[in-house]
Amino acid sequence: MSTKGGNPMEPIILASGSLRRQEYFRLLNLPFSIMPALIDEDYEGISDPRNIAENMAIRKINKILDLLAGRIPPWICAADTIIAVDGEIFGKPKDREDAHRMLSKMQGRSHEVITAVALFNSRSRVKAIDCRSVVSTVFFAGLSKQEIEWYLNTGEWQGVAGAYKIQGLAGCYISKITGSYSSIVGLPIHEFYVMLKENGYPYGNS
Amino acid sequence: MSTKGGNPMEPIILASGSLRRQEYFRLLNLPFSIMPALIDEDYEGISDPRNIAENMAIRKINKILDLLAGRIPPWICAADTIIAVDGEIFGKPKDREDAHRMLSKMQGRSHEVITAVALFNSRSRVKAIDCRSVVSTVFFAGLSKQEIEWYLNTGEWQGVAGAYKIQGLAGCYISKITGSYSSIVGLPIHEFYVMLKENGYPYGNS
Repeated sequence: MSTKGGNPMEPIILASGSLRRQEYFRLLNLPFSIMPALIDEDYEGISDPRNIAENMAIRKINKILDLLAGRIPPWICAADTIIAVDGEIFGKPKDREDAHRMLSKMQGRSHEVITAVALFNSRSRVKAIDCRSVVSTVFFAGLSKQEIEWYLNTGEWQGVAGAYKIQGLAGCYISKITGSYSSIVGLPIHEFYVMLKENGYPYGNS
Repeated sequence: MSTKGGNPMEPIILASGSLRRQEYFRLLNLPFSIMPALIDEDYEGISDPRNIAENMAIRKINKILDLLAGRIPPWICAADTIIAVDGEIFGKPKDREDAHRMLSKMQGRSHEVITAVALFNSRSRVKAIDCRSVVSTVFFAGLSKQEIEWYLNTGEWQGVAGAYKIQGLAGCYISKITGSYSSIVGLPIHEFYVMLKENGYPYGNS
């Protein structure tokens, strides 16, 4: 929003192809460039959903550092969102059938949405990558087969964790949430704001 | 999204000048026209926040019916959002000073956001105006004086109940919500969806 005398906001590399995350960066008026990080999303051996999301976000940062091959940028941000239903992890659906399976499982009950956000700060003396995660709960109303088909027909299920977009037409089916809406969309704004400040990024009133 | 054979979606008059509500109508792909209803917002004698919001939403519908002077449209929708902090009602701030007072009171604690949505259905035999309300809780982080000033400088406080926009930069300060995000923004999508269906409006899979 503003800069402090002699301490301008430095550009941040956003290690994400997610349009929602880009929109949040624009909302926050942060200077940024986009550099999607394609990582191996295998999480075998990790069972805690927070650990999985944090591991993925950190992997994305490390992927960017690898790609930059020694040219260290001041800031890199990455995030990862996953959905957990009874301990089962729902990532992006493989196809419409997979999306159908996920929605059928999630209807009429609650599930958890975990977003981890990782921040690389080249000047940090403590740890180069700060990573935090937020767990929210989403309650889906009971859905008829017709409602699931109708939603699948919107195409919103493609490319998103858990096969639904809370900011899209899935909002019709979500009766309640507890936690952070922006985290469910893909970037926990409040926690990211606190993280930027704690890492010395001159944002807001800093 | 879709129409049923011989039962097309009829236009709805949206009795609101709120851009957020218009955006939700567009998201839902509802055919609508805009007709803001300027009402007397005096709620003296009503103390329950839900009753106040519902009363205002119904007043807006009646205002449109008055303006149309006997030309009855098939559907009218109105909504009203208010904020309650310790029983005190926060509507739109009068000026920057009033916004400052509201934000100072809300920081570091929770408050309630109530949105009532009213639907006039010309074919209803039970009651012409169906009205429902949703109560959500918003938790603000503790804010420094500088943070409040910074937020006031964004100008987001103007024209919105409680002097903040959850979908704007106020997201930096909101640590948690419980309830309906869309209701906090201005229109509880899930409840409105259920309401349309229960009133026989051919939406979604109906």
